[in-house]
Amino acid sequence: MTHTIGIADTMFSRIDMHEIAKKTIEDSEESIKIERYTVPGVKDLPLACKKLLEEHNCDICLALGMPGPEKIDKTCAHEASQGLISTQLMTNKHILEVFIHLDEGNNKEGVIDKKKLQEITQNRVYDHTINAIALLKSKTALSNKAGQGIRQGHDNVGSL
Amino acid sequence: MTHTIGIADTMFSRIDMHEIAKKTIEDSEESIKIERYTVPGVKDLPLACKKLLEEHNCDICLALGMPGPEKIDKTCAHEASQGLISTQLMTNKHILEVFIHLDEGNNKEGVIDKKKLQEITQNRVYDHTINAIALLKSKTALSNKAGQGIRQGHDNVGSL
Amino acid sequence: MTHTIGIADTMFSRIDMHEIAKKTIEDSEESIKIERYTVPGVKDLPLACKKLLEEHNCDICLALGMPGPEKIDKTCAHEASQGLISTQLMTNKHILEVFIHLDEGNNKEGVIDKKKLQEITQNRVYDHTINAIALLKSKTALSNKAGQGIRQGHDNVGSL
Amino acid sequence: MTHTIGIADTMFSRIDMHEIAKKTIEDSEESIKIERYTVPGVKDLPLACKKLLEEHNCDICLALGMPGPEKIDKTCAHEASQGLISTQLMTNKHILEVFIHLDEGNNKEGVIDKKKLQEITQNRVYDHTINAIALLKSKTALSNKAGQGIRQGHDNVGSL
Amino acid sequence: MTHTIGIADTMFSRIDMHEIAKKTIEDSEESIKIERYTVPGVKDLPLACKKLLEEHNCDICLALGMPGPEKIDKTCAHEASQGLISTQLMTNKHILEVFIHLDEGNNKEGVIDKKKLQEITQNRVYDHTINAIALLKSKTALSNKAGQGIRQGHDNVGSL
Repeated sequence: MTHTIGIADTMFSRIDMHEIAKKTIEDSEESIKIERYTVPGVKDLPLACKKLLEEHNCDICLALGMPGPEKIDKTCAHEASQGLISTQLMTNKHILEVFIHLDEGNNKEGVIDKKKLQEITQNRVYDHTINAIALLKSKTALSNKAGQGIRQGHDNVGSL
Repeated sequence: MTHTIGIADTMFSRIDMHEIAKKTIEDSEESIKIERYTVPGVKDLPLACKKLLEEHNCDICLALGMPGPEKIDKTCAHEASQGLISTQLMTNKHILEVFIHLDEGNNKEGVIDKKKLQEITQNRVYDHTINAIALLKSKTALSNKAGQGIRQGHDNVGSL
Repeated sequence: MTHTIGIADTMFSRIDMHEIAKKTIEDSEESIKIERYTVPGVKDLPLACKKLLEEHNCDICLALGMPGPEKIDKTCAHEASQGLISTQLMTNKHILEVFIHLDEGNNKEGVIDKKKLQEITQNRVYDHTINAIALLKSKTALSNKAGQGIRQGHDNVGSL
Repeated sequence: MTHTIGIADTMFSRIDMHEIAKKTIEDSEESIKIERYTVPGVKDLPLACKKLLEEHNCDICLALGMPGPEKIDKTCAHEASQGLISTQLMTNKHILEVFIHLDEGNNKEGVIDKKKLQEITQNRVYDHTINAIALLKSKTALSNKAGQGIRQGHDNVGSL
Repeated sequence: MTHTIGIADTMFSRIDMHEIAKKTIEDSEESIKIERYTVPGVKDLPLACKKLLEEHNCDICLALGMPGPEKIDKTCAHEASQGLISTQLMTNKHILEVFIHLDEGNNKEGVIDKKKLQEITQNRVYDHTINAIALLKSKTALSNKAGQGIRQGHDNVGSL
């Protein structure tokens, strides 16, 4: 059976996150179609995902965004996250939120380390794309990874 | 096919944001009708947009507001933003939130720089009106601009 | 056609805000009926307004409240505001929130100036009652006042 | 006509708040039945109230809780409050939230004054139970107490 | 009658919380089936629980999560909590949120005390699993424990 993964991305993001997700899906050699939806910023992602899930036949979505470092950006990300959870509850389908906060890539001096940001982005988008593919299979496809302190985009912290 | 864009604006705003959006739509030479709805402040925008989308036949909305600089104003803007996302999820139509925070126009001394505020307002309303016109076309009309660090109302920060 | 305005007010408020709204409506010489609903505090206003709009035939509501100055009071007001927006989206009718925060009436020493608080209350309730009457007429009845920095209860700041 | 008041209470609370509400209802000599629902903490109260209102035939609910003094407890109380408002809007019935924050009972040294806490609890539960009985009668049963600065659980501050 | 308890857990957690809940249910010798659902993090729990309750025939859910110590983690937990309350109101079934914040296990120097964290986790998951079993029986099954300052995962503080 062919599944469809929706990928919603933004103009605001400073890295082409869609490309990473798309490549991960293609490399997986699963029979998966992709539907893309591009919006201005993270607050537009909930509706983009809802339309992907309801009108474009997607089984699951990746919501890709890169909120800025200011207080107002944190508030926007919070509002987007609440909307993404509401969307899931309205559609009964998962949306994996893949947000990279721009200041996650800061070095100790508080300046963006572009390479670090790119690595976090590559890893988090890759990891969550793999998670999405797993969730398409069954509700326990990720159970063998439970309780292990797994961190998408950063080193895992491990189980205690 | 003629589309209709809803424009919801407020008495509280200190600049006639509707006029900028209207001019942008007219200059676009697309076949687009406009429906306007004016309310007192940003917290009244969610319902105004819902009525534009449900009762006045609009395909998409611009929610134009100018929240004040005080803490209570930030809370109002947050509540309005949550309501605008809920409205989108209830109507399955986009609402582009175009909020200019009054203190975005402050100079280094913390005093409003009127010219700066007018420029930000002009640019952000213009940019989001263009975005709205694009979203009327297709879900990938903005994809060629994805991941490029595009900032409505400020200089773009570019992709990494 | 006779319209009905719902007025929801609270025991917690220190000023009879209902009386101001009622007088404003009567003085307007419009053909408007009033339905009143009194609840303990601002968090009870969303349901009071929903019942006024759904069960008591109101076309629009005024939600009158006076949140206290403490942090917990600010949180209550925030929750009430979110509920009032949800109520509007569920009923497709406007609710104008008319909250006077008790500390808005403080003088420079941080002590309540009763006269100042009464003036703010009188003006804000009056202004929003006039707004409600306008919104009953049409979605553009307030458009000639848009973008002018109008502040209910305080001096208008004007357009830029 | 016999009404039914739902009383939802928690294991987390340090005082038997249900007992105070029950006694107040019995002393009122109104023809009122009580349905009780006990849950672990305040975040479980919204569903308990919804079930009381929808499945156990209650006309109104008292949601009795005693959030702790830590920041996380304040967040829990906020989430519970939002849920209680949502529940009211879904059922069209009132839920009077009767939360006593543990630190309301602190003395000037920041230590719990048990007697003070018991007094606040007794008074607030009593007052809101009386309010609930009034709201069962009519939407203006509390109007003669409006605008008077009435504080459940503390001294009233009076009208201005 | 056989009941089914849904257990939703996360990859992010550093302890296998599912195992504790499962053992508690088995040791209870009640006739209870378990359905498990594993997701990446706490923000994915609301939908996992909704699907357990709606599609996998569960009567109640345990939502097991271990939010991190950073500010962003607190925000995630808050969003998850709001979603879990919404899910309960949409399904009319209880979800007991069992979150252990990683910094609850910190010692006085602010370093994780692994043993302390494991004890809190063991106790809180155990206690809430027992609560869930009780809630399956009746709405007053926990009433004999009401008002006693009971704290899942920490020492009870007792009634006043």
